[in-house]
Amino acid sequence: MRTQVGIVGAGPAGLMLAHLLHRHGISSVVLERQSREYVEHRLRAGVLEQGSVDLLRRAGLADRLDREGLRHEGIELRFDGRSHRVPMTELTGRAITVYGQQEVVKDLIAARLAVGGPILFEAEATGLAGLDSDSPVVRFRQGGRDAELRCDFVAGCDGFHGVSRAAVPEGVLTTYERTYPFAWLGVLAAAPPAVDELIYANHERGFALYSMRSPQISRLYLQVAPDEDIANWPDERIWAELRTRLETVPDWSLTEGPVLEKSITPMRSFVVEPMRWERLYLAGDAVHIVPPTGAKGMNLALADVALLGDALAAWYDSGRTDLLDAYSDTALRRVWRAQHFSWWMTSMLHRLDDQDPYEAKLQTSTLHYVATSRAYATSLAENYVGLPEV
Amino acid sequence: MRTQVGIVGAGPAGLMLAHLLHRHGISSVVLERQSREYVEHRLRAGVLEQGSVDLLRRAGLADRLDREGLRHEGIELRFDGRSHRVPMTELTGRAITVYGQQEVVKDLIAARLAVGGPILFEAEATGLAGLDSDSPVVRFRQGGRDAELRCDFVAGCDGFHGVSRAAVPEGVLTTYERTYPFAWLGVLAAAPPAVDELIYANHERGFALYSMRSPQISRLYLQVAPDEDIANWPDERIWAELRTRLETVPDWSLTEGPVLEKSITPMRSFVVEPMRWERLYLAGDAVHIVPPTGAKGMNLALADVALLGDALAAWYDSGRTDLLDAYSDTALRRVWRAQHFSWWMTSMLHRLDDQDPYEAKLQTSTLHYVATSRAYATSLAENYVGLPEV
Repeated sequence: MRTQVGIVGAGPAGLMLAHLLHRHGISSVVLERQSREYVEHRLRAGVLEQGSVDLLRRAGLADRLDREGLRHEGIELRFDGRSHRVPMTELTGRAITVYGQQEVVKDLIAARLAVGGPILFEAEATGLAGLDSDSPVVRFRQGGRDAELRCDFVAGCDGFHGVSRAAVPEGVLTTYERTYPFAWLGVLAAAPPAVDELIYANHERGFALYSMRSPQISRLYLQVAPDEDIANWPDERIWAELRTRLETVPDWSLTEGPVLEKSITPMRSFVVEPMRWERLYLAGDAVHIVPPTGAKGMNLALADVALLGDALAAWYDSGRTDLLDAYSDTALRRVWRAQHFSWWMTSMLHRLDDQDPYEAKLQTSTLHYVATSRAYATSLAENYVGLPEV
Repeated sequence: MRTQVGIVGAGPAGLMLAHLLHRHGISSVVLERQSREYVEHRLRAGVLEQGSVDLLRRAGLADRLDREGLRHEGIELRFDGRSHRVPMTELTGRAITVYGQQEVVKDLIAARLAVGGPILFEAEATGLAGLDSDSPVVRFRQGGRDAELRCDFVAGCDGFHGVSRAAVPEGVLTTYERTYPFAWLGVLAAAPPAVDELIYANHERGFALYSMRSPQISRLYLQVAPDEDIANWPDERIWAELRTRLETVPDWSLTEGPVLEKSITPMRSFVVEPMRWERLYLAGDAVHIVPPTGAKGMNLALADVALLGDALAAWYDSGRTDLLDAYSDTALRRVWRAQHFSWWMTSMLHRLDDQDPYEAKLQTSTLHYVATSRAYATSLAENYVGLPEV
């Protein structure tokens, strides 16, 4: 099998890249280890930056997003028994849109299939070869048979555990990482959201996040120990803990409902540099992970492939290599901005078991500062809604 | 000996308080362990916030400050071989004034003596008693003789090592602290400053700060190991290291000159809460220390006693206790804001020996963000020039 760009992974990065390339008349094949059913229901992020929404709109992918997405112009911070709204749109002119990653994936798959673009589901990439030639190969296994996809370029969009990054020779990549001494217990509940905007709560028992996916579905998170066992968290305990951490202001209470899904996610910061080796271009979770506190993961993936799509289009149009050569450095500026912001939000809002009392005081001071300084609140807001240029 | 307010320590806090009380018709006696000569030449901070300048002006103490102080409307950041100016006044409408702490002390002593207000030099406070009565006593030793100062209130302005804080019963105070794995080597040099504004440099060999005290005198700092011995730093080595860390942009070079003084200062963050116990009120370094990176130490001391002066005046005028009762909480809001800012500047600019590569990247990203975001630069600037209300 032969195509122009071989894309490993049918998450938001890989599918969006295939779509952008198609609009430039460039062929690609997307290989995905999982089934369509699986990727369309995989619960992940749910906040789109203004720039991501704009990108989806420009790419003709926003019909359902514009109908069903929830536009938010602010977020709420709860700490010290008080509530403070960060009026993001007032401060920056931009907004976020709440729309689940799996909805973006569904829209992208539908758009891809509508133009007859190939996505091979349950096709597991097993290795990459010839990346330093002008005809690299993606080896994969589908339906019990080994096959090869030959292409001009490989886009590694296969996440943290994918084969793409592992195909780069030893010594080429530098890894930067940090783990956090806590995890998030995430709950999806059939409960109409009690509020219109997300609530980020700093509580002495740990962080909690109140968010939603639709007018019927709430998405809630609790900071828990990194080695916590989900079996220790029957639904009753989850609701009780959410009440404790979130019902800290007068006249406000949670809306409860049946728990549809619950799971525990570790928190990690991770970056690999550069994001390219020879004819392999890496994007999304394959090269960078952020803790979810800043809601940046899916947005970074989309920003990566927007750059990569333009760079590949320039190469196919006119043989220009400058954008391809600049891809890694350009993308990494946004990646590191998001890393810093995610670290900042995470540090400001979580309770650290080994936190010394000095750090706890700094944390409170920082929250009060967000609540009193227009400049600092604007800085938080402009990162949260996404900086247009980094 | 009897007075209304017994003040321990003739630094900026103690002397300013005595001055403010005098203007309200309240008598005080200042006890100082060192000689006048010593305190007038003790090299310390050199940056006054706008609010400190305004306070000194309102108190009639700014004649020489207005003539000799250097008003600065920006600071320069150097990192990654580039230079970036933070235009503080453009961003905040306020400015800083470079004027050495010992000059403030000279002006305060002159003003105190001009009105015949007592300052007992070489009078070492040895202990406090009766703080929970309405007639506390400061015991001190002067000229080989023990004596007592009886008063209504005691103001403990005697610094980190003073006796005042130690007089509070065990269990009353909570201490918050952090030490940093580096120190500052400070140099005073008879060299006309090569620039008009302060330069904060982040360099792979460590932080450097270029500042000045007058049009003839430069004040320079180098990050060094916390246990560094000044004997390892002959003048030649100091200048060579300053050149390496500061001459990182084209067409710029240090102005060198004879070294007048050099010393090594450890870096510490320290806060004690509350800042009051019964009739004892603590202010300045006696209850909080910041690393010098944010230039906040002297400014916090002045802000403390501005509050305390008003609170004592209200008590003497009308018996009001509300301001005295609020003193600690009110002062601590500013203290913690300054703690956070000093920690932020320190973390952003220093090289940590044990810094992991992820942190180093975050640091660079933060500096680039200051250089590109008006909101973040404004946040830095508003802290640096001093927030009017906290």
